[in-house]
Amino acid sequence: MGWVEEFVAKAENRELVIGVVGLGYVGLPTAIGFHDAGFSVWGVDISQKTVDSIKQGVNPTGDPDVDDIIPTYGKSGWNITTSVTEAVPNCDVVLVTVPTPVTSDLKPDLSYVRDAGISIFEVIPNASRTIVVLESTVYPGVTAQTWNPEIEKLNRRVGIDLEIAYCPERFNPGDSAHGVRQVARVIGCKDEEIGKALVSLYGKLTSGDVRYVGKIEVAEAAKVIENVQRDINIALVNELARIFPQLDVDVEEVLSAASTKWNFHRYTPGIGVGGHCIPVDPYYMIQRAADVGVPAELISAARAVNRTMPLHAANVIHEIMYKAGVPSGQGKILFLGWAYKPEVGDPRESPAEHLHEILEAKNISVSVWDPHLEASSYPSKVNIIEDIYLANEFDLVVLVTAHKACLEIDWERLGQNMRRKIVYDGRRVLNLKSLSKSGWQVHAIGKP
Amino acid sequence: MGWVEEFVAKAENRELVIGVVGLGYVGLPTAIGFHDAGFSVWGVDISQKTVDSIKQGVNPTGDPDVDDIIPTYGKSGWNITTSVTEAVPNCDVVLVTVPTPVTSDLKPDLSYVRDAGISIFEVIPNASRTIVVLESTVYPGVTAQTWNPEIEKLNRRVGIDLEIAYCPERFNPGDSAHGVRQVARVIGCKDEEIGKALVSLYGKLTSGDVRYVGKIEVAEAAKVIENVQRDINIALVNELARIFPQLDVDVEEVLSAASTKWNFHRYTPGIGVGGHCIPVDPYYMIQRAADVGVPAELISAARAVNRTMPLHAANVIHEIMYKAGVPSGQGKILFLGWAYKPEVGDPRESPAEHLHEILEAKNISVSVWDPHLEASSYPSKVNIIEDIYLANEFDLVVLVTAHKACLEIDWERLGQNMRRKIVYDGRRVLNLKSLSKSGWQVHAIGKP
Repeated sequence: MGWVEEFVAKAENRELVIGVVGLGYVGLPTAIGFHDAGFSVWGVDISQKTVDSIKQGVNPTGDPDVDDIIPTYGKSGWNITTSVTEAVPNCDVVLVTVPTPVTSDLKPDLSYVRDAGISIFEVIPNASRTIVVLESTVYPGVTAQTWNPEIEKLNRRVGIDLEIAYCPERFNPGDSAHGVRQVARVIGCKDEEIGKALVSLYGKLTSGDVRYVGKIEVAEAAKVIENVQRDINIALVNELARIFPQLDVDVEEVLSAASTKWNFHRYTPGIGVGGHCIPVDPYYMIQRAADVGVPAELISAARAVNRTMPLHAANVIHEIMYKAGVPSGQGKILFLGWAYKPEVGDPRESPAEHLHEILEAKNISVSVWDPHLEASSYPSKVNIIEDIYLANEFDLVVLVTAHKACLEIDWERLGQNMRRKIVYDGRRVLNLKSLSKSGWQVHAIGKP
Repeated sequence: MGWVEEFVAKAENRELVIGVVGLGYVGLPTAIGFHDAGFSVWGVDISQKTVDSIKQGVNPTGDPDVDDIIPTYGKSGWNITTSVTEAVPNCDVVLVTVPTPVTSDLKPDLSYVRDAGISIFEVIPNASRTIVVLESTVYPGVTAQTWNPEIEKLNRRVGIDLEIAYCPERFNPGDSAHGVRQVARVIGCKDEEIGKALVSLYGKLTSGDVRYVGKIEVAEAAKVIENVQRDINIALVNELARIFPQLDVDVEEVLSAASTKWNFHRYTPGIGVGGHCIPVDPYYMIQRAADVGVPAELISAARAVNRTMPLHAANVIHEIMYKAGVPSGQGKILFLGWAYKPEVGDPRESPAEHLHEILEAKNISVSVWDPHLEASSYPSKVNIIEDIYLANEFDLVVLVTAHKACLEIDWERLGQNMRRKIVYDGRRVLNLKSLSKSGWQVHAIGKP
């Protein structure tokens, strides 16, 4: 039996041991997923706090989907540690699920990927052919460029001591139909044999299609363009949300009409995009294109639109307040929601932060109510409101995140405490007609 | 019985008479569609040649779908004429399906819409409440802005003599699943009653959803953004087709990998977009946004990418030829296809024309074979080849249009007559592996 056949048989019998390095939004569900699928798992995170929390069965990421299903610590095949040295030598495959944020000057920060790689490569047993799979989002070329020089420096032998591959995470936080157990996966690696081996392994994790797509760079590129495409389509409806009100047309009416066409893609405008993918990944592509001297002007234009949506919304809100009699440089605003998307407690790259900054810079006081976010998740200087019905003397409410809890508040009760009953729907999810009937002055993104 | 109820009943009993002004790619199938649905139809075209051709049962537009189904002239309820004055007084509803091209400086040319409107408004009988429906693609505001002043000048009374409405055509030439009898329609007009009346009428034409969407501007905007969205999504894959080969990655492999994700939209890169909608309509939107002082930078960026694809392809082709030993400023190229999309004989806005111009400007001689196009459809100065197997001494073949006939040529036989067996797939539809095996040097858009 050849190496691949042996690997596939072991996958079939759940005899492989899977390491997961980085137990955040992606790593934790992945570790749980492989454990649920019957594999022994070693979960590693650099943070003692994260490890302690997971050991206690408490999800440290705020993602509601994994809350109840963390395996009991000490249970067979469920090992959690801060030590790569302890974990990796036990593993046949090590998945790397560390963050790849952008720096303040919008360049990708690959230090987590590099450092995680080094720490793993150092402790892989000789001649073990351990497969190290990067799952973090990167741009084409990063896996090899970041890891190969380190592998060489450490005198580790690709093909003998270890193999490297890329399999981008794709799951959708807060969306149980597209979790790690459902989404289709693509695998890139130089050696087709390793690709086949990984197809068999990931096929045990997910019910979705698992496909070997060729070299690492193809899989890297696929992940980035998925997010780039989404960014661009959202940017289009956002650009239209700026244009149509000036033509006395409500963009949502137009989008609803257009979506009766068989090949129209329905997206909804909003005050900006957030999270760890859409507002970040396009910069990777832009950077890489710039490196090889090809302009990525469309991708850049889309980013510019989405990045400036909070500014646009802030200007519109400021004007609404001014017209309603709030003197410039005064006024109190209440945010409903802060997280970047509904039903998650994740504040990363949320447009709320940018909108908050701009309004505060206009001397407008902003308070925030988000039942999904812990106080520690906010940036400093944010006024957090615990009980929305105790909030009072506000001039305007902004629907920032379409959490169910935000949509289902008692608007009449909230209205009683407002100085002015003005609402700005930043997500086009409120029933504006009904709010208007009950005495609210209604405004919304893309509405004249 | 009120006016609307009476109209609906007449629609039900096919007692309404429908006028169609402009018998081109849209108007002719629409006229045929209403006739097939049981209505009396008056078809009007300003061109005697067009009218004569239709009377003889010959489709003058080159659209294969309507070729065989033109009703026999003289048949009950099928009237074709050049005279608006003769036709309109018979009609309950007049559909206007005239062209709305862009001028050479990329501004929308609305003269056909205005002129057709005037000629109709003049001859509508007093107090007939004839409904005039524009179906041509325009930007939001055009129908009212173009027609209302003329209606006023002619002292015609909206609501008494006539009504105006907008119902954008949406069918897809060459795609029998999305013809006038299948596609969903949206209707915009100020008066909801008229909207309801038209919903009942168009419901007899199409099996698709027919919806009243509110004022005219909403329906106008819906049509434009359908095409804008398509332009942008095509522009993205085209931008990626320029970037990825520089990273030694084939864009098609990436797109195939990405399309395994549940929410990815699969588009295919190419040497440019053509036809009467995608390369035209976005300029309407850009123009209108500029009028009201809002930038449409994303839409403009997309247009720039797609508009320059022929230039990009020409540069790549030129380099391929140079590397293959063809001296700069020499060489012979064969185009397979010229039409803007497969299986149609429509040359409008085809990127072939631009690509041809640029290559000829480089002193490369271009000949064209397109079995769907009549010789008269080409611009002047194009070398047309009748029998592809008599073509010889070419250095390179470009797959321009993915007509079935172009894909199914005998490549071996064609290759025997080539000076160099080089092929450039401008549509990513050829089996490059098999061509490569049989001795062709293969290149393609987005391929390293």
